[in-house]
Amino acid sequence: MINLLAGERIDQLFSENVKVIQSKKVFSYSIDSVLLVKFLKLPTKNGKILDLCAGNGAVGLFASQFTKVAIVQIELQERLADMARRSIKLNNLERQITMFNIDLKEARHFFDHDSFSHILCNPPYFKYLDTSKKNPNEHFAIARHEISATLADTVEITRFLLKDKGHFAMVHRPDRFLEILEIFKKNRITPKRLQFIYPKNHKVANTLLIEGIKNGKDYGLKILPPLIVHDEDGSYSEEVKKIYYEK
Amino acid sequence: MINLLAGERIDQLFSENVKVIQSKKVFSYSIDSVLLVKFLKLPTKNGKILDLCAGNGAVGLFASQFTKVAIVQIELQERLADMARRSIKLNNLERQITMFNIDLKEARHFFDHDSFSHILCNPPYFKYLDTSKKNPNEHFAIARHEISATLADTVEITRFLLKDKGHFAMVHRPDRFLEILEIFKKNRITPKRLQFIYPKNHKVANTLLIEGIKNGKDYGLKILPPLIVHDEDGSYSEEVKKIYYEK
Repeated sequence: MINLLAGERIDQLFSENVKVIQSKKVFSYSIDSVLLVKFLKLPTKNGKILDLCAGNGAVGLFASQFTKVAIVQIELQERLADMARRSIKLNNLERQITMFNIDLKEARHFFDHDSFSHILCNPPYFKYLDTSKKNPNEHFAIARHEISATLADTVEITRFLLKDKGHFAMVHRPDRFLEILEIFKKNRITPKRLQFIYPKNHKVANTLLIEGIKNGKDYGLKILPPLIVHDEDGSYSEEVKKIYYEK
Repeated sequence: MINLLAGERIDQLFSENVKVIQSKKVFSYSIDSVLLVKFLKLPTKNGKILDLCAGNGAVGLFASQFTKVAIVQIELQERLADMARRSIKLNNLERQITMFNIDLKEARHFFDHDSFSHILCNPPYFKYLDTSKKNPNEHFAIARHEISATLADTVEITRFLLKDKGHFAMVHRPDRFLEILEIFKKNRITPKRLQFIYPKNHKVANTLLIEGIKNGKDYGLKILPPLIVHDEDGSYSEEVKKIYYEK
């Protein structure tokens, strides 16, 4: 039996194979987590996956559907880490997924350098400025704004934890694209695949997916086909439905 | 009367409003020139446009359909500059368009710094390497490979010629995207609009359009909606037909 706290519910994904404990009051995953997992080619046998800024654990839970290698999750907020742990148990994934309720900036005290073959990250999207409109709910504020860790912190720890030629995939916002590229470069993570996500036809992109290789060679960047999330009538596009419901 | 040399033909574009002298043996414009012109919002009254690496003048000729401001063209190859001059005459555009048959690296001897409000460029796409497969036809080789001027040369002269807050638009290949961004940054041309062009649905991008502002502020980059060039059957997509045939 899994205990649900007040306001929590269980959502199912991928033909109901994964159950994720969610809460409107604390944290719910977005489509971005799903797209991130489907964007990166996960290792099937060898390797070790890290899910940074794991939130309620959705990214790692989804990833478990496509690989059997070990998945480590790092989440700063105790409340979210606890939800993730209960979801891991609910899905009987205790042997594959381990949640560390730590600050990613402290991760080098818990893991050796070059420990992971693949790192996934759905970080806070917004810079923390005194003038920023922040969600008064602390859980959302930390998940959305760079209150605890900046993009630079996240990529720096990624560089430390990722193996040579290891893969790093991140989902983020296009308005921070140039900054992302500079931080990748500074940490010698070479962009190899980029995909832009558009909310609808004829709209500017609102999301980007980027994959880099640690110490990768500086050529061969591919811009993947665009992904349009919604049809004209607001429902999910065929392509997104496929991502959501096909294994 | 306009003289056509051996192998030359006249092509018409934009509901037959523009006539361009082309030659399979020397140079023909590609769809990239058309997309470049339609990508940049041209000034209607004030301003002065420069078409760098002008080839047979297609970009400037197309641009003349959307603005009445003066257009200067620079082309190194005498044979192509001559084609462009005859096309200018053929379209009665001598008062709007002026072709300079010079090396762009010498342009600062012909023009003052900060002379242009808008610069368009469809440069050679390929690096000049001893190992490169080059077209044995010298005209094509120079137009396609960085034999005479590199991307760095081109953006450097752009920085010199462009007004403060002036617009620079270029068409290029995604595999050189990261290099383009670095060269833009070095010359303080801030990317503001990006569009990726895909040959067909579900294919990786083969072309990119980028607009930068000289000394522009470092935020607010927009990734425009994707443009798919061909339908499944190989014919032009509705969107490209619109670009080609609507004014």
